[in-house]
Amino acid sequence: MTYLPQPETEQIAFANVLTALGDETRLAIIGRLARNGELAMACGQFGEICSKTALSYHLSKLREAGVVHVRPEGTKRLVTIRRADLDQRFPGFLDSIIATAQHLPMPGEDGSEGDVA
Amino acid sequence: MTYLPQPETEQIAFANVLTALGDETRLAIIGRLARNGELAMACGQFGEICSKTALSYHLSKLREAGVVHVRPEGTKRLVTIRRADLDQRFPGFLDSIIATAQHLPMPGEDGSEGDVA
Repeated sequence: MTYLPQPETEQIAFANVLTALGDETRLAIIGRLARNGELAMACGQFGEICSKTALSYHLSKLREAGVVHVRPEGTKRLVTIRRADLDQRFPGFLDSIIATAQHLPMPGEDGSEGDVA
Repeated sequence: MTYLPQPETEQIAFANVLTALGDETRLAIIGRLARNGELAMACGQFGEICSKTALSYHLSKLREAGVVHVRPEGTKRLVTIRRADLDQRFPGFLDSIIATAQHLPMPGEDGSEGDVA
């Protein structure tokens, strides 16, 4: 099984979380995950947001900052928001991010690429 | 009077705001401004956070993203958080940032420099 490094709850740094979220494509990924509730999503379900290569890059940024869990399962990778960890460390923050992220235009809708910069 | 460019309310982009805030020194500046309430602060009042050169750099990042207003007054520059604009665009977001920023250690307290990277 591939080892996917991610910080422990206490190691999640607020500045790193903000930097990881400071990208339209990553905000769209968070908005999509939030709309799916508590259910894990497979990488193939983000096809409307960006290419597979771009998704892999953006998910690694979110995972390394402690925003999402990425868990290999067979040939798939399942993604969830680390809601409990983020709510514990930064109360109210994730909800405010999701509230805004769900109302942003999808990357590309304004003519931009929404791909790896 | 020096022209200090900053986005109109409607031009403030969420990803840019998050990127600008994704830095320990800039979070400390926001925490310090928040503790000062609605009052503008002069650049000289941030001396415990970072050097004058670093402050100038960090304030420009916050200003260009639309997080703070920087207004020249005589030989001084007065800084305020753009609370009304941010609350209008991203309800609840600024409060969650301030709540966390006020509890973070000052840059340098953990041994890091807290200066321009």
